[in-house]
Amino acid sequence: MTSAFPLIDETAASPEVKAVFDDIRQTRGTDYINNFWRALANDPATLKRIWGSLKEVMAPGALDPLVKEMLYLAVSITNGCAYCSHSHGVAAKGKGMTEAMFAELMAIVGMANQTNKLADGYRVPVDERFENLF
Amino acid sequence: MTSAFPLIDETAASPEVKAVFDDIRQTRGTDYINNFWRALANDPATLKRIWGSLKEVMAPGALDPLVKEMLYLAVSITNGCAYCSHSHGVAAKGKGMTEAMFAELMAIVGMANQTNKLADGYRVPVDERFENLF
Amino acid sequence: MTSAFPLIDETAASPEVKAVFDDIRQTRGTDYINNFWRALANDPATLKRIWGSLKEVMAPGALDPLVKEMLYLAVSITNGCAYCSHSHGVAAKGKGMTEAMFAELMAIVGMANQTNKLADGYRVPVDERFENLF
Amino acid sequence: MTSAFPLIDETAASPEVKAVFDDIRQTRGTDYINNFWRALANDPATLKRIWGSLKEVMAPGALDPLVKEMLYLAVSITNGCAYCSHSHGVAAKGKGMTEAMFAELMAIVGMANQTNKLADGYRVPVDERFENLF
Amino acid sequence: MTSAFPLIDETAASPEVKAVFDDIRQTRGTDYINNFWRALANDPATLKRIWGSLKEVMAPGALDPLVKEMLYLAVSITNGCAYCSHSHGVAAKGKGMTEAMFAELMAIVGMANQTNKLADGYRVPVDERFENLF
Amino acid sequence: MTSAFPLIDETAASPEVKAVFDDIRQTRGTDYINNFWRALANDPATLKRIWGSLKEVMAPGALDPLVKEMLYLAVSITNGCAYCSHSHGVAAKGKGMTEAMFAELMAIVGMANQTNKLADGYRVPVDERFENLF
Repeated sequence: MTSAFPLIDETAASPEVKAVFDDIRQTRGTDYINNFWRALANDPATLKRIWGSLKEVMAPGALDPLVKEMLYLAVSITNGCAYCSHSHGVAAKGKGMTEAMFAELMAIVGMANQTNKLADGYRVPVDERFENLF
Repeated sequence: MTSAFPLIDETAASPEVKAVFDDIRQTRGTDYINNFWRALANDPATLKRIWGSLKEVMAPGALDPLVKEMLYLAVSITNGCAYCSHSHGVAAKGKGMTEAMFAELMAIVGMANQTNKLADGYRVPVDERFENLF
Repeated sequence: MTSAFPLIDETAASPEVKAVFDDIRQTRGTDYINNFWRALANDPATLKRIWGSLKEVMAPGALDPLVKEMLYLAVSITNGCAYCSHSHGVAAKGKGMTEAMFAELMAIVGMANQTNKLADGYRVPVDERFENLF
Repeated sequence: MTSAFPLIDETAASPEVKAVFDDIRQTRGTDYINNFWRALANDPATLKRIWGSLKEVMAPGALDPLVKEMLYLAVSITNGCAYCSHSHGVAAKGKGMTEAMFAELMAIVGMANQTNKLADGYRVPVDERFENLF
Repeated sequence: MTSAFPLIDETAASPEVKAVFDDIRQTRGTDYINNFWRALANDPATLKRIWGSLKEVMAPGALDPLVKEMLYLAVSITNGCAYCSHSHGVAAKGKGMTEAMFAELMAIVGMANQTNKLADGYRVPVDERFENLF
Repeated sequence: MTSAFPLIDETAASPEVKAVFDDIRQTRGTDYINNFWRALANDPATLKRIWGSLKEVMAPGALDPLVKEMLYLAVSITNGCAYCSHSHGVAAKGKGMTEAMFAELMAIVGMANQTNKLADGYRVPVDERFENLF
């Protein structure tokens, strides 16, 4: 293993990896395979499991695709994952996130990170009335 | 200071705190003041600043109120803030979050936390094409 | 091992643990041994190493003891460690932290957690002039 | 939006942004506007809110400005925010943080992150006597 | 939804949930279904996906089951997840983790959390020679 | 201090730093001193304390050295520490971690980060039977 985590491309891919790449292309209607998938392709079992899970989780449902993508983005920024914040930002923009929407998302991410620590630091007890509400 | 962080109620509140409590009630259309605000009332300047910021950030805008609340909730769960996850869960439900929506939100929070670490651990480089897209 | 992590007290302590407990008492000028140390006493090597490191790190130096304790507290709250936030809050108060100081500490912890995410989310590049300044 | 998050400078700034930039310059006694503010200027409302909050939080009070800056720095390092750790390191040095002070700050940040996890992992219960002390 | 997140038991479970519960029992050779799975059963799709993924990830492979469980435990403690730290501690003990092993695991978790922040705070650049090694 | 955090090399090292460097070389059977130690050498007391602690924690014990190194790696990836993930990846590989082992480690790190948040978000209560088991 001279180089760690090479980005696997089509020509080097096993049939199992190619099958996942093909499904990504078809599902997303694009020819492009992100570096994330090409890196995961170093472990075909994980590539398959993660893609399968992501496809299921991000499929249309009770939440619309843009909202889902923005939730993904907000979590990624909170975790400080640079790759994920960038790639899910691209994805969200592709699904219709405007500059104004992104600005509001960032404002919320900032506020939530602030109030999360205030609640912890002041050891705020859960309101009794919340118990039966959620 | 015999007891740390008492929950300040109306009768003990200074005029400055009362003014914030009144604005919370009016803005939210409720008589109830959450423990979070009553704890912050130990520091009136912070109470006022945080409430003012939150009111501005969560006001109607490019994103609808339910989406905003769900973004807040997703960040709070990612940070492991028990109080915030509970209170923003209550708020999101109050704004229309169904069980199905919450289930999808949780699925995304889980996946994002997973793939954030995969991207970091495999040191995935940002795709060149992302540079001009977001 | 019927019960996990018992709090080891004097009577159950080995000579190695007793020696650490004695040093804690003498260094702090108190008879009381916090639950943290009594839990760590389940692993005498770790108890000794952590106490020795903490004693060295928290000793008087370029920063005064109260500032050190408040730095410890700010980190503990940021990490959401309930035990540590409580015990270092007690320690900081014992060293002179007033309610006003704590309120300012909390305001900073909140702001820093907020702006940390804003800087990450907006991918702010480090200012060139910073390179030679720190 | 061809390029994400451009750093807004004076010539491109709206009057609202210019007013904030002017206040930053005046408050800090410098002509230089950090990249952080120039990035936030993509969303004038957030720029104004964050600057206003920061100005209030970091103003002289019960804690001296250097202590405040070091608390900010300790939180930023704990959160792994590279930009913030660098910029608040510059700011702390500008307010008098010596190499020895920084070394002690880092030692505390390291220890706190270590003992935070030990307390969590050993599930240390809060000492009864702490309840009335903080 | 009067009560949030009820723990679903056998009698209330849908056929889809029952099938997962049966597979958990068979795979683990136990009659007991942890609260985690009973909570996830509120969303059968997530229950099925998470169990399927976990079963695959934790299956015997290049790493032995005890090592896998201890890795899971170390991550859970680092994230401050009380439920996960407890349940994976139970699981690790069931697979042979002794008190001495746990003590060493905790010592490593503590040290890693400490040095992670030291490396970040001192902005240590990656050694050139590492580039080709991993 | 014109340049922050220079990497201290042999020629610039004080006797105290040289003694630690020598012990690192002897303990690890290598001539190479990682950048991490050369950065910490800016604070000889911390260099000595951290190296002494690490040497003790990573010494052969109930867990074998490769397992210890992988636990360190899993925590470092979870914390998003790029330097530590890279250097402990190199170290783990040097102690025998194969590509297959790394792939399984990554799969576990990903899953644990996912289920940690699911357990928090669904507020799963600890199983009664766990109380006496760990």
